Amino acid sequence: MINVAVVGGTGYTGYELIRLVLAHPQTSLVAVTSRAELGIPLSTIFPALLNQTSLCFAEPTPKTLEKADIVFFATPHGIAMKQAPELLANGQRVIDLSADFRIQNAPLWEQTYNMPHTSVDWLQKAVYGLPEHRREAIAKAQLVANPGCYPTAVQLALLPFIIKKLVNPQHIIADVKSGISGAGRQANIGLLYCEVNENVHAYKLDGHRHAAEISQELSLMNSNIMPHLTFVPHLMPMSRGILATVYINPIEYALSLANMHKELVNFYKDEPFVAVLPAGQSPKTRDVRGTNFCQLSISQPAGEKGPWVVVSAIDNLLKGAASQAIQNMNVMFGWKETQGLEHLAVLP
Amino acid sequence: MINVAVVGGTGYTGYELIRLVLAHPQTSLVAVTSRAELGIPLSTIFPALLNQTSLCFAEPTPKTLEKADIVFFATPHGIAMKQAPELLANGQRVIDLSADFRIQNAPLWEQTYNMPHTSVDWLQKAVYGLPEHRREAIAKAQLVANPGCYPTAVQLALLPFIIKKLVNPQHIIADVKSGISGAGRQANIGLLYCEVNENVHAYKLDGHRHAAEISQELSLMNSNIMPHLTFVPHLMPMSRGILATVYINPIEYALSLANMHKELVNFYKDEPFVAVLPAGQSPKTRDVRGTNFCQLSISQPAGEKGPWVVVSAIDNLLKGAASQAIQNMNVMFGWKETQGLEHLAVLP
Amino acid sequence: MINVAVVGGTGYTGYELIRLVLAHPQTSLVAVTSRAELGIPLSTIFPALLNQTSLCFAEPTPKTLEKADIVFFATPHGIAMKQAPELLANGQRVIDLSADFRIQNAPLWEQTYNMPHTSVDWLQKAVYGLPEHRREAIAKAQLVANPGCYPTAVQLALLPFIIKKLVNPQHIIADVKSGISGAGRQANIGLLYCEVNENVHAYKLDGHRHAAEISQELSLMNSNIMPHLTFVPHLMPMSRGILATVYINPIEYALSLANMHKELVNFYKDEPFVAVLPAGQSPKTRDVRGTNFCQLSISQPAGEKGPWVVVSAIDNLLKGAASQAIQNMNVMFGWKETQGLEHLAVLP
Amino acid sequence: MINVAVVGGTGYTGYELIRLVLAHPQTSLVAVTSRAELGIPLSTIFPALLNQTSLCFAEPTPKTLEKADIVFFATPHGIAMKQAPELLANGQRVIDLSADFRIQNAPLWEQTYNMPHTSVDWLQKAVYGLPEHRREAIAKAQLVANPGCYPTAVQLALLPFIIKKLVNPQHIIADVKSGISGAGRQANIGLLYCEVNENVHAYKLDGHRHAAEISQELSLMNSNIMPHLTFVPHLMPMSRGILATVYINPIEYALSLANMHKELVNFYKDEPFVAVLPAGQSPKTRDVRGTNFCQLSISQPAGEKGPWVVVSAIDNLLKGAASQAIQNMNVMFGWKETQGLEHLAVLP
Repeated sequence: MINVAVVGGTGYTGYELIRLVLAHPQTSLVAVTSRAELGIPLSTIFPALLNQTSLCFAEPTPKTLEKADIVFFATPHGIAMKQAPELLANGQRVIDLSADFRIQNAPLWEQTYNMPHTSVDWLQKAVYGLPEHRREAIAKAQLVANPGCYPTAVQLALLPFIIKKLVNPQHIIADVKSGISGAGRQANIGLLYCEVNENVHAYKLDGHRHAAEISQELSLMNSNIMPHLTFVPHLMPMSRGILATVYINPIEYALSLANMHKELVNFYKDEPFVAVLPAGQSPKTRDVRGTNFCQLSISQPAGEKGPWVVVSAIDNLLKGAASQAIQNMNVMFGWKETQGLEHLAVLP
Repeated sequence: MINVAVVGGTGYTGYELIRLVLAHPQTSLVAVTSRAELGIPLSTIFPALLNQTSLCFAEPTPKTLEKADIVFFATPHGIAMKQAPELLANGQRVIDLSADFRIQNAPLWEQTYNMPHTSVDWLQKAVYGLPEHRREAIAKAQLVANPGCYPTAVQLALLPFIIKKLVNPQHIIADVKSGISGAGRQANIGLLYCEVNENVHAYKLDGHRHAAEISQELSLMNSNIMPHLTFVPHLMPMSRGILATVYINPIEYALSLANMHKELVNFYKDEPFVAVLPAGQSPKTRDVRGTNFCQLSISQPAGEKGPWVVVSAIDNLLKGAASQAIQNMNVMFGWKETQGLEHLAVLP
Repeated sequence: MINVAVVGGTGYTGYELIRLVLAHPQTSLVAVTSRAELGIPLSTIFPALLNQTSLCFAEPTPKTLEKADIVFFATPHGIAMKQAPELLANGQRVIDLSADFRIQNAPLWEQTYNMPHTSVDWLQKAVYGLPEHRREAIAKAQLVANPGCYPTAVQLALLPFIIKKLVNPQHIIADVKSGISGAGRQANIGLLYCEVNENVHAYKLDGHRHAAEISQELSLMNSNIMPHLTFVPHLMPMSRGILATVYINPIEYALSLANMHKELVNFYKDEPFVAVLPAGQSPKTRDVRGTNFCQLSISQPAGEKGPWVVVSAIDNLLKGAASQAIQNMNVMFGWKETQGLEHLAVLP
Repeated sequence: MINVAVVGGTGYTGYELIRLVLAHPQTSLVAVTSRAELGIPLSTIFPALLNQTSLCFAEPTPKTLEKADIVFFATPHGIAMKQAPELLANGQRVIDLSADFRIQNAPLWEQTYNMPHTSVDWLQKAVYGLPEHRREAIAKAQLVANPGCYPTAVQLALLPFIIKKLVNPQHIIADVKSGISGAGRQANIGLLYCEVNENVHAYKLDGHRHAAEISQELSLMNSNIMPHLTFVPHLMPMSRGILATVYINPIEYALSLANMHKELVNFYKDEPFVAVLPAGQSPKTRDVRGTNFCQLSISQPAGEKGPWVVVSAIDNLLKGAASQAIQNMNVMFGWKETQGLEHLAVLP
């Protein structure tokens, strides 16, 4: 059993981490922090935890966290880069679910997040935690930058085709639909039930921060050639789930749709958490809801000379955040990668 | 006062037509037909109509319809092409909300809808009823083919740019999100609350019938040059509304985003039902819910050399069906075009 | 045309008032106030109003409001009792949609709302605005206290039976289900989409303020005999609508269910906005959504010796707030009571 | 490992049984039947099962089921009473999730379900499977009648008070709110998204079948004294969850609310799946969603002389169906009762 702490435990990702760590066969939850709810039992904020843990929210100090072998940060960006270095210096491992260590180029990070980066050395050492792309590096990492939710969905759609150079990286369009929990558990008029319900809209039409993260990783898949990506996020009237509809153009039209489907299947055949649907089907977010799975399809709706369309579905709070962090922990500790993550979707 | 009949009054579009005709200052509702609910009061099927009309569902015979000056068909495709010709021969006017008269090329219609067309002569004479594009022809028409919901949203996004030849019609991607009412009021497992709720997915990834309708109209806007359109529809967990996110590439990058926005504003400045949002905002389906309005925006999320993104929001059952039919009726009878259609969105 | 102002125009009730006043044939909207959004166009906060009004939010000063013949307060409680007296002294009429003038007994008001009442004289003069009970007094009123949403639904269920003394007022249970918009448009964690969606719960189980308001009015229907009412509100995962399930016991079991249904039908037969469903049917909130209607049913689920169950459905923001205020205005000005309120439900 | 079969595996309860059996440490899923989907892989109907099982739907014959040590029936009523006797005669165990064996009085069963009962002898031998009430009998049973969803929620609210004779059983009102999945996965207009969304209504106002089941069990808790129960079910716009608001009157007002709360806490203190909230809180359906838990509260909203209100929340498909069946299986096989059922709610 190793000891786990969660910094920032009152949000949706925080709750999911707590739930997964409590159920994981090799972890013990030793601390969950929150400045706002200091001293309050976890089960007061989350009655779903009634009788399941007697922990109270603690202060996010090194003292609180010193018993932890690994610390998860489920905080807004700008926190982990300040608090993680001391833990790392103590030899503790850290998985940061915020954006603080995702973009390795410090000036680009600072421009994207509009603040100075206070831990540039660790920015270089951090490993970007998409296991399907970087499993070996993650296994050796002390600090893992857990991917964003949109970047996870988009990268899993593109990874096989970029790596195998089947796709022109200059014309990628990712039209992405997210449930509202991606925006977090914060008191904000735009997130009210009455504002979200029966409503669909695009946002960040002048550019979303996740585009930089996706582009960095796509270039790493492709001999450092920077892609040209158009990324448009949309909010859906649902709590959870991301559906990414990714439009790509082949390098040449040599491959048929059937062959592209085969490429996709083969690429992921040993991945425990990525499933390619049979030809003719396409993924639904609810089939991966509450799980660490990604489901994928490929098609060509405008016929042989039209773009290929790869559709990718994940749970934004799990494969897009908390359960991918657990998967990374499993890899970092050399455990069975699926441990504590076998849940299937609760339907409907 | 003119007399109106509705053929096929038990679906969602049928109800909306009934509601709009009952409230319209120049129309009297004389018959609503349904074979399945023959003789049943409208208010039994739709308790919202309690005390508002004493009509019962009638048989869709010429006898039932003979008092009507204009007949709306809110039926599945394949019905209006059989029943409308007799009414038209009597001099009655017809607005068909189904697909029967939308594609003028008969072989293409038959291939798209996979059945023989039984009224090819009227197919030629029908006018496609998008008032913003074809107002003058509609004013003289006896038979109007009311546009599909997706085609209305996509065409209003593209109309100014295609007509002014600002856009390359060879690379258009329309990623479209619809509420579930577009699939109609039919007993079908896939439309159950438990299947739709908390779920987003793409469908018809091998090609949707509306692509042919959109392509025909885009070519008519553009000296008969056929566009190349990739059209991917998605279902959203909501009852009503369509959001079309349309990705287009300019003929050349001479125009700035600010100028493109100006083009859009100017093009629609006299249209009563099309509103362009101020630069920097983008439309939400709920702001047009329950109305005949379309709201539009334009942006360029991947920067100056990336595609333009036009977002279009309509109510699929109103501007995408019933209220656009009323708008067409207003044009056909020479009435004020906004009559009976002034409702603003009921929020939230 | 009379001039109308709305104080507190950024909430959901405020928007609905704006929408109804803009469409009303005899009113002109001259001012909408909001301290928070001072100077901002209404259409910036509510893009559904784009091109429909050029008004901007103004300060809630007597100067701003002096042109108004009637002022609607759509503010939290505690505001109208401070601002209305000056307007009333000028001879302007006021309809207060908050709770400030609903409970005539000042000490009871102060205990219920936990603040001193600053306008006790107007508290006595205010008329409680449930037209189905108090139409004549409303017609002569200068100040109308618009009923709460729950009280409207519960009183319309009980009015015929209490007035005709068919029911024992000592054992009334009102189990009431409300859409979330009743809680207003405020940044509050508990109102987030992710907190409300797929969730049902009771609240205020130690007593809700509306119980005092309902009890006062029931006693006025019944020779001042105070009823004993158990009132339990619940929140539903939907934006709008109230369903009140009211359990009552007869004075004696002389009347059959069929007769009770007849009593209900007869009592409301001339009311334009109350509809009693045929025996065997019961109301659905969506059939009154977006309207000023109330639909009612009566039944006896546990058999002849069990309680009667009256079910009442209204739109909480309309018959439960904004459109009932318009109905009261129509009565106060001697206009046709249904004017500007004829909308039927937009379905689905 | 014991072998498990599920008869009727295409509904929502069927899927949940499959999911729970696949994850249970002591069970192996050997057959899932469906006449309609014969030969089709489970993962075609439920893509959430992709790569998790290679089973196909089989015919519900004794041959198919002979390998099973225990068979779950997730079928409409009328099936299990015909098919279970042969399995039981073979010595197999059966848990019937339908209503076939819930009401022990055969004439009452036949009147309630309006068909002859074909297995009256097994009706007598069946044990009603509410572990909190009948754990010892379940442990010895060969045939368990799994309780209905509403009856589970209502009985857990009443059990302590009826058994301890604190409550007058002659005046019980249960106002119950259910998610729509309780109505099953069937093609039915009333269950469509567009009919359910933004809509709340009561149903079966002339009496619901579950009232007989609840009354039987309440009488068994109370020296066979039949209660007088008014039971009104409502449908909510959500997929899952039941909230029961139960109004009860004390035998005498000797006990304070604080004492009643203590009674409730003490009664359930050793139950692994029933949690009583701290005084002042009340349960939300989402906190038990996806779990086998029931959460409870007690309050007295109309003051000391008013009725007590017990609120009970369960997941209708789990504690109200599939996971309670697994709990019963655990009891029948003498396993740890919580095995395979430890999941906490996935939030939000």
